[in-house]
Amino acid sequence: MDTLKRRIQEDGRILPGMVIKVDGFLNHQLDIALIQEMGEEFHRLFKSVPVDKILTIEASGIAIAAITAQSFKVPVVFAKKSESKVLDQDTYTCTVHSYTKNRSYPVHVAKTFLHENENILIIDDFLAKGQAVLGLVDIVRQAGARVVGIGIVIEKGFQDGGKLIREQHLNLHSLAIIDSIEDGVLRFRDSSLSDTKGSSL
Amino acid sequence: MDTLKRRIQEDGRILPGMVIKVDGFLNHQLDIALIQEMGEEFHRLFKSVPVDKILTIEASGIAIAAITAQSFKVPVVFAKKSESKVLDQDTYTCTVHSYTKNRSYPVHVAKTFLHENENILIIDDFLAKGQAVLGLVDIVRQAGARVVGIGIVIEKGFQDGGKLIREQHLNLHSLAIIDSIEDGVLRFRDSSLSDTKGSSL
Repeated sequence: MDTLKRRIQEDGRILPGMVIKVDGFLNHQLDIALIQEMGEEFHRLFKSVPVDKILTIEASGIAIAAITAQSFKVPVVFAKKSESKVLDQDTYTCTVHSYTKNRSYPVHVAKTFLHENENILIIDDFLAKGQAVLGLVDIVRQAGARVVGIGIVIEKGFQDGGKLIREQHLNLHSLAIIDSIEDGVLRFRDSSLSDTKGSSL
Repeated sequence: MDTLKRRIQEDGRILPGMVIKVDGFLNHQLDIALIQEMGEEFHRLFKSVPVDKILTIEASGIAIAAITAQSFKVPVVFAKKSESKVLDQDTYTCTVHSYTKNRSYPVHVAKTFLHENENILIIDDFLAKGQAVLGLVDIVRQAGARVVGIGIVIEKGFQDGGKLIREQHLNLHSLAIIDSIEDGVLRFRDSSLSDTKGSSL
């Protein structure tokens, strides 16, 4: 998605540890017009598969998932990271390690909100080592539901999450894949450019 | 907002401690069509004031704020609850106590995303004792910006958050105000019903 790649080039900041900070439009401040474009692009990419529900993980995935769900006209479920007194005891759970936060935490989805044979589209903001997405895939499988697609805004192509997911033949599309960061210069993978051009190529 | 009140009646669950659980459409699973209606209603209620930005707090406020922002065509900033290695050091901060989670936590907004004299609409899912909203008001004031309105989905009218905020003459609108819960029966405040009917009353 070219508008997204330009925006990452212009506003993204590279921090130590190859962390790409896009707080100006995706992770703290939200550029709603850009997120609407992303939602429409995810719809274009996944409209040929049946989608009953979108699954994401709090907090940064929520806005993208909610706006994408407008195109699909389906509900969103967001997995919760923290133990809460209010959370159902009866949940599907997995453990996810965050490398940016340097800790592991349990992730829950109440059993009430995922059902056997449902078609689930997973949406998230970042894919790096794949911990969060693979955790969500695990939760969908625990429920006996199907992962029909995985839509990611920014994939760090130089880490192995994308490879692990593609090896499982899961239907993964990333709107921007960053293949390398060298001396502060981001290099995007071409295939993610062609994705956004669709049938015109 | 009558559709919302009906939905709370039908799907809300009352837990010990007067906790109202609306995980089926607002706090875990998101009914996107209903949230779109809420967004349009917030736009009707606040369209007469200038809004430069919508401020909310992770995680449950994000979907409502993002979808409301589509009507206003403004960006959203969501305040962050956790310390993260990736978060700017240079932040406006306050401390908020959560009664449902029974702990206090720091809330941050990076200074880059709130500016002097900006007109800020605060949006959140729940208003009970007012801790989260008053924390956001404090953060807006630290930035030298103005709170032009506060839009809440569900206000617990039997707790004192709404009173504290109205005493400060802040422009508060709640889409549903629950005045009492007795023997599992929710009673809504009439004024919140008339709000949704607007000038036809």
